[in-house]
Amino acid sequence: MIRVVILGSGNVASHLSRAFLQAGVIDIIQVYGRSEASLKTIDNQIDKTTELNKLATADVYIIAISDDAVVALSSRLPLTNALVVHTSGSVSMDALSTTNRKGVFYPLQTFSKDADIDFKDVPVCIEAEENEDLILLEKLASAISDSVYFIDSAQRKSLHLAAVVVNNFVNHLYHIGYEICQEHQVPFEILAPLIRETAKKIETIAPIKAQTGPAKRNDEKTIDAQLAMLSEKHKKIYRQITESIKDTYGKKL
Amino acid sequence: MIRVVILGSGNVASHLSRAFLQAGVIDIIQVYGRSEASLKTIDNQIDKTTELNKLATADVYIIAISDDAVVALSSRLPLTNALVVHTSGSVSMDALSTTNRKGVFYPLQTFSKDADIDFKDVPVCIEAEENEDLILLEKLASAISDSVYFIDSAQRKSLHLAAVVVNNFVNHLYHIGYEICQEHQVPFEILAPLIRETAKKIETIAPIKAQTGPAKRNDEKTIDAQLAMLSEKHKKIYRQITESIKDTYGKKL
Repeated sequence: MIRVVILGSGNVASHLSRAFLQAGVIDIIQVYGRSEASLKTIDNQIDKTTELNKLATADVYIIAISDDAVVALSSRLPLTNALVVHTSGSVSMDALSTTNRKGVFYPLQTFSKDADIDFKDVPVCIEAEENEDLILLEKLASAISDSVYFIDSAQRKSLHLAAVVVNNFVNHLYHIGYEICQEHQVPFEILAPLIRETAKKIETIAPIKAQTGPAKRNDEKTIDAQLAMLSEKHKKIYRQITESIKDTYGKKL
Repeated sequence: MIRVVILGSGNVASHLSRAFLQAGVIDIIQVYGRSEASLKTIDNQIDKTTELNKLATADVYIIAISDDAVVALSSRLPLTNALVVHTSGSVSMDALSTTNRKGVFYPLQTFSKDADIDFKDVPVCIEAEENEDLILLEKLASAISDSVYFIDSAQRKSLHLAAVVVNNFVNHLYHIGYEICQEHQVPFEILAPLIRETAKKIETIAPIKAQTGPAKRNDEKTIDAQLAMLSEKHKKIYRQITESIKDTYGKKL
């Protein structure tokens, strides 16, 4: 069994520790958190500690904390030549402390406290300096997920950027849709099946082929009418994306 | 049985005629199309015509053609005091010819030729001038869909605007994500579970609460690093949406 210690107690850490626990073939021996309170979300079957000098001996240490704290924690670990990986999309592998062997274990998904995630569906992007560490990470990832990818730091950065666009930015557009509905006393839930279908469609056809709407067909009448309905702050985004769609399909605003 | 004639042969017309056919309780007696060729997608169990003066007598005539052609066709119909409805999100009910009773039967979904749609999940927004026509449209809509909404023309316009944002604009962001992946030799499919989860999330929590990412947490370091990776055309959209997210959460760019 691969022995794992997780450092962190946020959404990624708690989802990850639960997935390892359920996988059976992984020995999740300890979770480190800054405080007892923060460790509450971690399953009680797992040993917990708030002290770095009480870290158990493991085959791999997974740092699952916020991006900007990863590097600092990696250099504070009282370990030498251990395999230390992080779970961040935006931090390069090289940024980790050189005291230990480096790697990355990046689950590409949005984790919330409440929403249950089936880890089988979560793509895990792995990277390591040493070949045998990569093999170990692959075993670890395969134990909880059906899709494991070898992704280097440069690729991961672009993947993280794409994820910001298709997740964070898309969610903001959902929010704008929500505001438009609220302003006009229309229930936002009417849009749910459309949102679902739009997301599903691109699993079978490339987004460029799935594009529809007034901007795509250069329908100035509808574009003008819709702009007139929008508040100033939303007009900017409407114009910008409309222009970008037109550019993509070879028509100028 | 409610007797229905559909005017049109595009995606909405073919999906709608199929749904009526399967519903059993609806008598879909005829589909009108401009040419024999255009009517190929319509099920052969249904009578088809290319001549307006051969329109069958029905309880309701549904115009399911492109938005900008609806009004012209409505005034060419050789009918008097019949119930004529359209399926468009952006055309107001009043725009229909006054020769007939007016109504709207707007299925809020994105229809492709290839993708099969379960009409049960498609919200149908109905509107009519006369109360008994509204009752008829409700029966018609309930026969094929589990969600029927009474939506007036002003509400429908805002719904259509919101749909453009959460469907057409979102799909364009998927396309940008696709381009970023291609540029950096990363398979776009890695993002599919994330895209699915982002869409699913807002069925249980409001988008404003589901927001995550560098713009939300005002992470300038990541924002700058990501901007540096983008081509000029994508930089504009990245900046605009980042600014809008920051404004939403009370932080200025």
